[in-house]
Amino acid sequence: MANNNNNKKLVSEITSRDTDFAKWYTDIVKKAELIEYSSVKGCLVIRPYGYAIWENIQRLLDRRFKDTGHENVYMPMFIPESLLDKEKDHVAGFAPEVAWVTHGGSEPLAERMCVRPTSECLFCEHYSNVVKSYRDLPKLYNQWCSVVRWEKTTRPFLRSREFLWQEGHTIHATAEEAVAETEQMLNVYADFCAEDLNMPVIKGKKTESDKFAGAVSTYCIEALMHDGQALQAGTSHYFGDGFAKAFDITFTDKDNTIKHPHQTSWGVSTRLIGGIIMAHGDDSGLVLPPAVAPVQIVIIPVAQHKEGVLDKANELLGRLKTAGFRAKLDDSDNSAGWKFAEYEMKGVPLRLEIGPKDIEANQCVIVRRDTREKAFVALDSLEASTSELLAQLARGLFDKVAANIESRTYTCRTMDDISLAISENGDGFVKAMWCSSEACETQVKATTGVGSRCIPFEQEQISDKCVCCGEPASIMLYWGKAY
Amino acid sequence: MANNNNNKKLVSEITSRDTDFAKWYTDIVKKAELIEYSSVKGCLVIRPYGYAIWENIQRLLDRRFKDTGHENVYMPMFIPESLLDKEKDHVAGFAPEVAWVTHGGSEPLAERMCVRPTSECLFCEHYSNVVKSYRDLPKLYNQWCSVVRWEKTTRPFLRSREFLWQEGHTIHATAEEAVAETEQMLNVYADFCAEDLNMPVIKGKKTESDKFAGAVSTYCIEALMHDGQALQAGTSHYFGDGFAKAFDITFTDKDNTIKHPHQTSWGVSTRLIGGIIMAHGDDSGLVLPPAVAPVQIVIIPVAQHKEGVLDKANELLGRLKTAGFRAKLDDSDNSAGWKFAEYEMKGVPLRLEIGPKDIEANQCVIVRRDTREKAFVALDSLEASTSELLAQLARGLFDKVAANIESRTYTCRTMDDISLAISENGDGFVKAMWCSSEACETQVKATTGVGSRCIPFEQEQISDKCVCCGEPASIMLYWGKAY
Repeated sequence: MANNNNNKKLVSEITSRDTDFAKWYTDIVKKAELIEYSSVKGCLVIRPYGYAIWENIQRLLDRRFKDTGHENVYMPMFIPESLLDKEKDHVAGFAPEVAWVTHGGSEPLAERMCVRPTSECLFCEHYSNVVKSYRDLPKLYNQWCSVVRWEKTTRPFLRSREFLWQEGHTIHATAEEAVAETEQMLNVYADFCAEDLNMPVIKGKKTESDKFAGAVSTYCIEALMHDGQALQAGTSHYFGDGFAKAFDITFTDKDNTIKHPHQTSWGVSTRLIGGIIMAHGDDSGLVLPPAVAPVQIVIIPVAQHKEGVLDKANELLGRLKTAGFRAKLDDSDNSAGWKFAEYEMKGVPLRLEIGPKDIEANQCVIVRRDTREKAFVALDSLEASTSELLAQLARGLFDKVAANIESRTYTCRTMDDISLAISENGDGFVKAMWCSSEACETQVKATTGVGSRCIPFEQEQISDKCVCCGEPASIMLYWGKAY
Repeated sequence: MANNNNNKKLVSEITSRDTDFAKWYTDIVKKAELIEYSSVKGCLVIRPYGYAIWENIQRLLDRRFKDTGHENVYMPMFIPESLLDKEKDHVAGFAPEVAWVTHGGSEPLAERMCVRPTSECLFCEHYSNVVKSYRDLPKLYNQWCSVVRWEKTTRPFLRSREFLWQEGHTIHATAEEAVAETEQMLNVYADFCAEDLNMPVIKGKKTESDKFAGAVSTYCIEALMHDGQALQAGTSHYFGDGFAKAFDITFTDKDNTIKHPHQTSWGVSTRLIGGIIMAHGDDSGLVLPPAVAPVQIVIIPVAQHKEGVLDKANELLGRLKTAGFRAKLDDSDNSAGWKFAEYEMKGVPLRLEIGPKDIEANQCVIVRRDTREKAFVALDSLEASTSELLAQLARGLFDKVAANIESRTYTCRTMDDISLAISENGDGFVKAMWCSSEACETQVKATTGVGSRCIPFEQEQISDKCVCCGEPASIMLYWGKAY
C-alpha cells in the first residue's frame, strides 16, 4: 500500500523516460510496487503486484505448454559437482557463475553441490533412469522454479542472481523430432509475446559464439524496448545427442538397435516483466497488457459520499467480476486525483469513473491507460464495451511496439552506415550482412557498439558482402545493443 | 510410461500393507510413478503424475488463501547468516539443519548464506522496509517455493532434504488479529484436508516442547494413517511480537504511538501427498481423492478393435472433458487386464468400461477404485452419474478414514492402559490427561513409545489426574507415534 495520505501525484516522483531511461526503469519497479530489494545483492523480493503479473504469465504459458503435450515435473535444486562436470561445454559455461553449497548443518559435504543455474544435468540423470525403449519417448517436460547465477552486475528482472523461470526439457528418438520441438517452442514463445504481452518479437537463431553452453543451436526471440535496445526474451535450444552421450542415455529403437536420443531445452523468465515495463511503459508509469494485468479495470467513484454512488460502483464491480474481468473498486478516502495517478503508475489498462451525473445518464466514463482516450459507455452494455476497449488497448500496444521496431530498424551496408544510423536515429535493430566469421562479429561490436542479436528466420538479401570485411556473405544478421 | 509389453499385473509387484507398511509405501511412490530418486540423497525427482497431484493441491489451496485475502509473493531463497541469527530461538532451531552456500563462482562469499529452511527472517526484513503505519497493516502474504532442511533420515514426501511447500506470513496491528489469523488458517487447512483430500484431521495445539522455533504457540492438524501412526499435516504459528522486536519492525498506530506488530506463519507441504497415500491407499496401489486426482475417470475400451468401440469411447471422453472432469482414454494396445491394474495402481477414482454390448444397450460400466463396486450407467446420464459416483467415492474415503480414527483412538487413564491398548489394537491415537510438565511428556514417550501429538481444541475430561505422574491435570492430550 502506498502512503494513503499522500495526494501528491506519484508521477512527479519518477524520472522521465527521455531524461534517463535506466533511472525511469528502476523508479517504476519500486513505485509500482513490483519489487523491493533484499539484503542479498541481486536477489529481489517480488511483491504482490509484481508476483500477480508473473502468475498470469505462468497461467497463460502453462496452458500453451500443456496444449502442446508437455507435463510439469520438479527436479532437485542441487547439482553435485561431478554431475555438473559431465558435459564439458556446459560446465565451462556455467561453473564460473554458480553458488556452491559446501556444508549441511555443521558438517562439510563429501562433495560440494551447486544451486541449479539451469537443470540440463538433472534432467539427463533422470532420463538415464527412465528412458529405456522407443516406447518411453518422447518425454516432454517442463519445470517452474527459480535458478541462481552469480552475476556481477544485477538489475531488477533483467539480470538477477536468483530468478524465477520455466525450463522445458524434452528428449526424442530422432534429431528431426527434437529440432521440430525446438522450433515449435520458439513459436509458442513468440505467439505468447505477441498475443498476450502485445509485444511482437524477432525470431531467429544465435550465432555460434552466442549459443547456450552445450547446445548445437540456440533459437531466440528478440524484443525491442522503447529506448531501442534489444531484450532477449526467450531461448530454445537443440542439443543433438551431445548430452545423451555425456550422460550415457540410450534407448532400444524399433529396429532393436541401441541409440542415443536427442534433446532440447527452452526457457523464459521474470525477465519478461522487464520487457513489459520497457516496451509499454511511459512517464506516468507502467502500462500493462490486459492479458497479464493483475487488475484490468479499476472503478473510481466520483463524489462517492453522494447517495447511490458507492452502491452503483459496487454493482458495476460485481457485474465486471461476474463477466470474468479482473476488476477492482477503490472506495478509499484518497482523492480522485491521487487514485488516477496511482492506477496509472500501476498500469491498470482501464479506469472506470462513475459519479452522480453518470448514474443519472445511465452511463460511465472509461479511460484507456495507453492513450488516455475517454469513452462514455452506456451501463447497459458495460461488459461488451469493457471487452472491446481492452481488445483495442491490446492492439494499440502491439501496434506501438511494432511501429517502434519499424522506425528503429536500420538497413546498413557498411560500418559507417551503422554508426550513422545510430547516431542520427538512436539505438535500434541494425540489419546487415555477415560472412559468418567470429572475427567480424567481434569487430562490428568493437567499432559500432552493436552486437549480433540473431540470424532472423526471415532473411533478406541486403547485399552480397559482409558489412565488416567485405567478403562474400549470404547471411543477414540483426545487430543491436542489448539488455 | 510403464513397460507397455508387460501384461503381468503390477499389483503383484508391491508389498502388501499388512506385511510391511513402510515397504508398501516406497513401492507405491515408485510404481505409481510419483517420484524417482536423484543422486542427491533426500532430494527427489517429482514425476509428472506426482507433480500433477501437487498442482491440484496448489490450485485448491491457493483459491482458499486468496478467498481469505492473501496475496502471493516471492522472497529470495538465500538468508545471510547475520539475518538468520537475529531471532535467537529461531536460529537455534534451524541452524543445525541448513545447507550453507559459501562461494559464488570461484570467489568465497564475504558472508555465508543458507538456503532457506523457512522464510521468517526474509519476511521480517521485508516488513521492516514496507510497514510504517497502521494503514500498512495487515499484510497477508503467501509464498509457494521449495525449502531445504539437511535431515539425516529421509523418506519420499514425508521427510526430504528439499521439499515443496507454501508458507503463509502475515503481520498485524494487534495480537488478537494475529491469533485469529493463526486459527483461521488452521481451519482452512483442516477444511481442505476434509473436503478436498477426504482426510479428516484432529485440530489442536502443540505442547511447549513441540513448538516451532521462535513461536509463542503452534497450532497443528494431525492426520491418522492406515497403520495407526499420526502425520502432522500442517502447522500454523502465532509469533506474538518476538520477531518484530528482533528485527526492529515498528508502526505508528492510530493513537500516534510507535508499536511492534504481531506475526503469524503457516505451512503445508508435499508431505500431504504422503498423507494421501497412507490414508487411502490399498494393496492395489494408490487411491486418490477426486479433488486432487490428475485423472478422475479413465475410459478403457473393451474389444476396442470392434467397429464403433473407439469412436464411442472418444465421444464419451469428449463429453466428460466438456463437463469439466479430468478424463483420459487409454486406447493403447495393452490388454484390458494390464490397464485395469495400471490405473488401480495410479489410484484413478473411476474406471469406465465400454464395449460392443454396452454400446448396444446404450450404457457403460463404471467401477469405483475404492470399493470396486460396479455400476451400469445409462450413457444418457453419464455426466450426472460420474459426478454422483465421484461424490460417493469422496464420501466413502472420508468415512473410512474417520472410522479408522474412531476405532484406533484409545482413551487411557494409566500408563498400563496405553501399553495395553496399543499392544492389543495396534498403533493409534491415545487420549490421556496431562499435567503440563515436560518431564511427564518425555516419560510417557520413553515408557510407552507414544509422543505428544497435540492438545486438541475439543477437550474431554477423561479423568482429573495426569496419566503419568498422577498429579492433578486438566489438559487432555492426543498421543501417538508419528511420521
